[in-house]
Amino acid sequence: MATLSSHIIARLHSPYGDKFGIPRQSGLSPSLKAEIELLPPYDRPEALDGLDQFSHLWLIWVFDRNRERNQGDDWNPRVRPPRLGGNQKLGVFATRSPFRPNPIGLSAVEIIDVDAAACRIRVAGADLADGTAILDIKPYVPYADSIPGAEGGFARYAPDEVLAVAFSDEATTVLDDLPDGDLLRRLITESLTLDPRPSFHDNDAERIYHMRLADREVHFRVMDSGAEVVGITAA
Amino acid sequence: MATLSSHIIARLHSPYGDKFGIPRQSGLSPSLKAEIELLPPYDRPEALDGLDQFSHLWLIWVFDRNRERNQGDDWNPRVRPPRLGGNQKLGVFATRSPFRPNPIGLSAVEIIDVDAAACRIRVAGADLADGTAILDIKPYVPYADSIPGAEGGFARYAPDEVLAVAFSDEATTVLDDLPDGDLLRRLITESLTLDPRPSFHDNDAERIYHMRLADREVHFRVMDSGAEVVGITAA
Repeated sequence: MATLSSHIIARLHSPYGDKFGIPRQSGLSPSLKAEIELLPPYDRPEALDGLDQFSHLWLIWVFDRNRERNQGDDWNPRVRPPRLGGNQKLGVFATRSPFRPNPIGLSAVEIIDVDAAACRIRVAGADLADGTAILDIKPYVPYADSIPGAEGGFARYAPDEVLAVAFSDEATTVLDDLPDGDLLRRLITESLTLDPRPSFHDNDAERIYHMRLADREVHFRVMDSGAEVVGITAA
Repeated sequence: MATLSSHIIARLHSPYGDKFGIPRQSGLSPSLKAEIELLPPYDRPEALDGLDQFSHLWLIWVFDRNRERNQGDDWNPRVRPPRLGGNQKLGVFATRSPFRPNPIGLSAVEIIDVDAAACRIRVAGADLADGTAILDIKPYVPYADSIPGAEGGFARYAPDEVLAVAFSDEATTVLDDLPDGDLLRRLITESLTLDPRPSFHDNDAERIYHMRLADREVHFRVMDSGAEVVGITAA
């Protein structure tokens, strides 16, 4: 079986310490800022020369948070996209699932600024967890990459904001005291409104979910009336 | 240095026997049809289930026709995009050049039809040579992938049709006698009008270029008045 060996050229620094909670495509969380850092021996400022002429770039990256199952030799030809509620199967090549023969992800992100000297690129909207390994960075070329009339199958439209998001008094007090509290409040709201749960769970107000965001642990529950952040603690 | 080992999951069958002549992004040659064939053990019809709901797909593929130089460990941080005439250098991550640390290509192509039982997908507009190794197939998701207002830097617009294309009497006679002559004429015209030469050469009417297309060798020259196909022979 033929293979290609690829080098990790960069890593992403993101407020999301884990993949749980990250909106499941790029561009869905407008407040989500992240930073790409070129790794040695690819940390050459000249390699970024001209990238600031573009507004967006492609990241080709590794689904390295899903290594435990259903990737590589252990792949399954059919997967359950969360978008379809987790109870309908589709062919893996008809989905963007991380559980695929080669654990390679693809995301278009907005360039905020390019700090070539530091070998860093700040981007918005990246749906990658902190520390994710990156294989390639390419400019987004609109005339070839943007196909506005394309037909998107089961993922025709961006996911709906299905959940109203509320914060408990305790969570509000924590956020009010944090220097980055406003940003954290926006990130939490943008994530929870899309319902980050792995597939549609029955709403069970007793069940507490946890996501790691900006070095904190965010605890929330989902009721029929929406999501409630019940607490925020140190990670 | 961390690496990822990827499997070749499919190969492309294209009329272009070599990379020379292929328009340098996807979608630029409307007559260019190609076929993706899943390879064992990835030739599972179920893996394509639902792909026919989409109009376009992404190919993540290997620049395996450029292995000889300037890839992998031998990469250069700056490259000369043909689009800039070949005499201006830009950072490799600001270009779609095949000469990059990981020889990975990215192309959006139009789906013509999905023959799941045969593990084949017919596509239009693929800028890949015959036999190119494919690492992943993903559906094109318009709400995340299509960014019509994106700023495309030096590749802001599709390349101009810079060359008028003419056929010699000899070439015309060959095309008139071929069952696929009309298609071949359109493919040649769509390629040559974009000037496929590796960088802007001085127009030298004595110099003959050769490209391999649909199992034939196409011989052409470029004069100030445009390109002329001087002959078509068996490959």
